[in-house]
Amino acid sequence: MKLCKVIGFATASLKVEGFSPYKMVIVKSMDENGSPVGEPFLAVDTFGAGLSEVVAVATGAPAAHALPDKGLPVDAAVIGLLDHVSIYKKEIYSKHKEG
Amino acid sequence: MKLCKVIGFATASLKVEGFSPYKMVIVKSMDENGSPVGEPFLAVDTFGAGLSEVVAVATGAPAAHALPDKGLPVDAAVIGLLDHVSIYKKEIYSKHKEG
Amino acid sequence: MKLCKVIGFATASLKVEGFSPYKMVIVKSMDENGSPVGEPFLAVDTFGAGLSEVVAVATGAPAAHALPDKGLPVDAAVIGLLDHVSIYKKEIYSKHKEG
Amino acid sequence: MKLCKVIGFATASLKVEGFSPYKMVIVKSMDENGSPVGEPFLAVDTFGAGLSEVVAVATGAPAAHALPDKGLPVDAAVIGLLDHVSIYKKEIYSKHKEG
Amino acid sequence: MKLCKVIGFATASLKVEGFSPYKMVIVKSMDENGSPVGEPFLAVDTFGAGLSEVVAVATGAPAAHALPDKGLPVDAAVIGLLDHVSIYKKEIYSKHKEG
Repeated sequence: MKLCKVIGFATASLKVEGFSPYKMVIVKSMDENGSPVGEPFLAVDTFGAGLSEVVAVATGAPAAHALPDKGLPVDAAVIGLLDHVSIYKKEIYSKHKEG
Repeated sequence: MKLCKVIGFATASLKVEGFSPYKMVIVKSMDENGSPVGEPFLAVDTFGAGLSEVVAVATGAPAAHALPDKGLPVDAAVIGLLDHVSIYKKEIYSKHKEG
Repeated sequence: MKLCKVIGFATASLKVEGFSPYKMVIVKSMDENGSPVGEPFLAVDTFGAGLSEVVAVATGAPAAHALPDKGLPVDAAVIGLLDHVSIYKKEIYSKHKEG
Repeated sequence: MKLCKVIGFATASLKVEGFSPYKMVIVKSMDENGSPVGEPFLAVDTFGAGLSEVVAVATGAPAAHALPDKGLPVDAAVIGLLDHVSIYKKEIYSKHKEG
Repeated sequence: MKLCKVIGFATASLKVEGFSPYKMVIVKSMDENGSPVGEPFLAVDTFGAGLSEVVAVATGAPAAHALPDKGLPVDAAVIGLLDHVSIYKKEIYSKHKEG
């Protein structure tokens, strides 16, 4: 799963059938210092993640398993809101400190 | 899903069976300022996206779920035309302003 | 799908069962000027694409749907020979002009 | 499979159903000298890999096959703890020397 | 499929069930001159590829189709030992010359 930070949101009025109940967040992967890197991408989010929250995002075919409807064309989904992230024993993110 | 801008179109007369009803757009991913980045790629489009429109594109095996015929060799499909895209509360795209 | 140019060919005498009827082309993705970029890779080709032809290549699990035998370990397949490719209304490839 | 080094750990209290029994490690791919490179990512680990251990990580849809529950949205899983890694006959990792 | 050169080997004593009969090679993709590029990765090999041999590697979900047991968490498998590789009519690899 990608270790991501939520950096924004997107809305679509015209979209494939069955997609309407889902919210899309814009995320970026994080490097080992917690800084967002690489290209932003869209993930379906059923957890209500807020701006700057750190989340685990499943990509590819497994992403659909995060939703009740497995037949949607979803290739990225938030699968959890992270509480603590440590790299080489240094805490780079703690939800309670930031939130 | 990739956050993409439509940058062109492609046509093929010789293609796999079942592909004929579908139009192919050429898209590029967008960075957080809304500029296209990376390699262009082809996506099947059933929404009639126009040049410079911003779309969500599902890639990999999930893309086929955007089409009525799930058995086509499709690895990228437009799943929605985006209305608004905001990054860190700044609007980087609004369909109504641009369109 | 990747927008690719055929840059070469490969043959294998020792390969997985069922692979024998298929030809493998070597392709590279194209940038928006039509120049090949990135790493070359192998794609199964049932269209008889020639050197320098521009093709659409499906990658990942969907690639197998381009072949009669869906159970082969194929992660890239030519799904069509392109006729015209335009980027921002400029034609970057036309089969008839080049061929 | 990716040849990875474990560089950290992450915990999530809010996550998709069925994920609770699994631990998530943070890993990075290794280059041919054994140095971690690229973006860190999350992998489900059922082997109890420790910090700095070298592991094989399956990514994409196959990752779910490493878990008893195949229906989880998992796109990366540790599939083994490596003992020896040699590149051009030079040993770049040996579990017994390091552990 | 990736056009790869075998650069090493890895062994694991602790691994997922069903993986024991398989050998893992370490490979790198090749550029159009035949030089290895990018990150090394692990592929299951049932062909007995030797060091410096050039092989076709299927990645992602299709890789499992190269093995008798389709339910293994395998995301990369050697699907053939290449004999000849030519790029723009120049032979960049010939098994018989090198072997």
